[in-house]
Amino acid sequence: MTSNTLPEALRLALSQQFQNRFSCGESTRLQHGRDESVHDPMLPYGVVFAESLDEIAATVRLCAEHGVPIIPYGVGSSVEGHVLAPSGGISLDLSGMNRIISIHAEDGDATVQAGVTRKQLNDALKGTGLFFPIDPGADATLGGMAATRASGTNAVRYGTMKDNVLATTTVLADGRIMKTGGRARKSSAGYDLTRLLVGSEGTLGIMAELTVKLYPIPEAISAAVCTFPDIDSAVQTVIQTIQLGVPVARIELLDTLSLSAINKFSKTTLAEAPTLFFEFHGSPASATEQAETVQAIADEFGGTNFEWATRPEDRSRLWQARHDAYFACLQLKPGCRCFPTDVCVPISRLAECIAATNEDIAQVSIPIALFGHVGDGNFHLVVLVDPDNEKEMAEAAWISQRVVSRAIEMEGTSTGEHGIGLGKRKYLVQEHGEAAVDVMRAIKSALDPNNLLNPGKVLPPPTN
Amino acid sequence: MTSNTLPEALRLALSQQFQNRFSCGESTRLQHGRDESVHDPMLPYGVVFAESLDEIAATVRLCAEHGVPIIPYGVGSSVEGHVLAPSGGISLDLSGMNRIISIHAEDGDATVQAGVTRKQLNDALKGTGLFFPIDPGADATLGGMAATRASGTNAVRYGTMKDNVLATTTVLADGRIMKTGGRARKSSAGYDLTRLLVGSEGTLGIMAELTVKLYPIPEAISAAVCTFPDIDSAVQTVIQTIQLGVPVARIELLDTLSLSAINKFSKTTLAEAPTLFFEFHGSPASATEQAETVQAIADEFGGTNFEWATRPEDRSRLWQARHDAYFACLQLKPGCRCFPTDVCVPISRLAECIAATNEDIAQVSIPIALFGHVGDGNFHLVVLVDPDNEKEMAEAAWISQRVVSRAIEMEGTSTGEHGIGLGKRKYLVQEHGEAAVDVMRAIKSALDPNNLLNPGKVLPPPTN
Repeated sequence: MTSNTLPEALRLALSQQFQNRFSCGESTRLQHGRDESVHDPMLPYGVVFAESLDEIAATVRLCAEHGVPIIPYGVGSSVEGHVLAPSGGISLDLSGMNRIISIHAEDGDATVQAGVTRKQLNDALKGTGLFFPIDPGADATLGGMAATRASGTNAVRYGTMKDNVLATTTVLADGRIMKTGGRARKSSAGYDLTRLLVGSEGTLGIMAELTVKLYPIPEAISAAVCTFPDIDSAVQTVIQTIQLGVPVARIELLDTLSLSAINKFSKTTLAEAPTLFFEFHGSPASATEQAETVQAIADEFGGTNFEWATRPEDRSRLWQARHDAYFACLQLKPGCRCFPTDVCVPISRLAECIAATNEDIAQVSIPIALFGHVGDGNFHLVVLVDPDNEKEMAEAAWISQRVVSRAIEMEGTSTGEHGIGLGKRKYLVQEHGEAAVDVMRAIKSALDPNNLLNPGKVLPPPTN
Repeated sequence: MTSNTLPEALRLALSQQFQNRFSCGESTRLQHGRDESVHDPMLPYGVVFAESLDEIAATVRLCAEHGVPIIPYGVGSSVEGHVLAPSGGISLDLSGMNRIISIHAEDGDATVQAGVTRKQLNDALKGTGLFFPIDPGADATLGGMAATRASGTNAVRYGTMKDNVLATTTVLADGRIMKTGGRARKSSAGYDLTRLLVGSEGTLGIMAELTVKLYPIPEAISAAVCTFPDIDSAVQTVIQTIQLGVPVARIELLDTLSLSAINKFSKTTLAEAPTLFFEFHGSPASATEQAETVQAIADEFGGTNFEWATRPEDRSRLWQARHDAYFACLQLKPGCRCFPTDVCVPISRLAECIAATNEDIAQVSIPIALFGHVGDGNFHLVVLVDPDNEKEMAEAAWISQRVVSRAIEMEGTSTGEHGIGLGKRKYLVQEHGEAAVDVMRAIKSALDPNNLLNPGKVLPPPTN
């Protein structure tokens, strides 16, 4: 796919409308045709930098007229190939859609353009006493997070994007503008189009504006860290905590290799052993009570060095270390790329799933760190590969396939928070069955009959 | 529509398959062709009493072959005409689908057949330490509750059916069986078909089995009741409670007329004034802390007689009174029917919305009680009418239209928890706009091209 397959009339129209906010330059196309994953780049024909709802609609209408695909782009932090252009087309960069439209502090919601990032929103909320909790590793755009049904460390308490997007303004495949949902806290009025769009990865419509839920900043926040003799003990602590209904805000597992990578990267001196990071939100009494309950559970399973951090700077240090885990692990093998896995299983199967995964890890030669949002039953492997090394890529593919198949057998999912993109399409039928995937295809055809919205993503090719 | 429009071949096939679990008797058809609403009955051609997933699929296949509509039926507690048969067809009674398939206490979920009622599920959970919180007024089936995206008094803390259905087994319009969702606590794998089905009112598929979320029974539960000098003070208390993030489990408003009806019906001696009912869940310390915080807020707004109830029997008495409110109000005018309203607005608009509604109420001659789940911004009017009295019906229609239009103007919804059914179709475009309703129609056509699944519900006629 090269830029000369862009219809000349479309190029002219886009140039006229967007001037220097439309580019077919090689470097811009390359930047928009690759992501954080191991997928080879696939370049769009050109890139439009849209700055308003109407500009998105105009771009979609023009592309529809010329039968040219359109691929929404936020900050490119996808790890499943969502922004790649396997059929060419126009990459629609929404990073200029960065206006916070309204904050309704009294209702606990905010309406933002899709290019606003999660940190930008939280900065804008300063002084309101509210925050937006969903925190994937990257400072992703809210549009991208909605499109992939993202979550992060706070999901165990605050849910995922599916629970926190109340309404959208969405551009349909023919350029029409649709409103979905609303600001009421509940509604039984018609089909839930908002939640159909959340997680649809830009294949059913382009979310241009979003209304998201906000939460009061808890009166008290405390964090804690605790090491365990082995992964199983840590996981049993998680399971019992969740089963008791302790409303932990965060409960994260890191394995020994992750801790060792973090210590090197962040110059910390954390114990290099399986470790749980916790955060507790509530009134002072409630946060203390939660921490005490969890400490007692951890004790039971051999947890040691239970260390509390209630001062903001100590909490930040702790959670910065957790947030650095991914980048720290990348440094274990300089120049490598990460082949991501992202399974999620019912919590009762988590210990067994991780134990079997560790047996797989012992079979391969490449370094693999394990960490994750275990309160949800979700964990990641950071599988470090040189994409040019066939043996390493084969090992990575083997372990990824093993882990996904095991999770699906355990009534879990191939992806807890990254999305299907290009990389997990092959598991969609295995996970949901033919009938459900047929229904997804029928919905896709109904909403995007010419297959122009992010084609090739989510749905496996019919011949699969 | 009479039974003689049922194709003879279909009648024979259903008789053969279901024998005495297929009936075209007048009384059975009448029982299935009316609901709790003011809508005139519309009878199906016949009724099938299905007892398994395969029987549902077989019925749907047979009806599809003969182009005959199929209308799922639970316990008939709809108040928006969902179970009526405006185009005839077969009513598919799922009350025999009452098996609890599995309880995964360690994961906090249960899989049930669609005809299991909420009380039946909670009875089955005794001894597990878990409960299912969603509680619409009636002891509805979980299938019916999922179909209408129901909620109830606990939604302010535990969400609605959209938040609590994890997975379904659904029969499609052509009789194929589809699985949606899964038991993992989160997933980004493909379109969210579960949440598309929840609230689709039987028009996209027939949910035969559901997996729902369960919650640990709180260690401590306390209830409280508090009266206010006027509705506005009560509503201001609610708003401040929610805005402070107090995790109340229930916060219900009843107006003076409702209280007076309850006292007559339940032989209670509650103060006949605007009243809030609260429930607090948590550890003993947390439940006490919540109650104290709310009491302080109520004091500020002139709340008096703040009465706590921590003993189970006192709580039951209090909440029984709240649950009796609807039936108590019906007794205010013996022989009457209720014309229901069910708006929900952003909490910041709630006081204004209720005040304006009370001005409307002052304009009409019929008795109208007001109560609701005000923690969500949701309230009901119990508009008591004699359906044969034209003036009363006109007044009821007038006030319903006023209340709905006002809620939509306030960025709220025509229905917080009852569903669209037949009664609210005329507001769907006003609430969501033409583009969204077009997309709903496109999805309906894609999944049910011959319009046989509960035809005439949710979507307004295209000529509307």
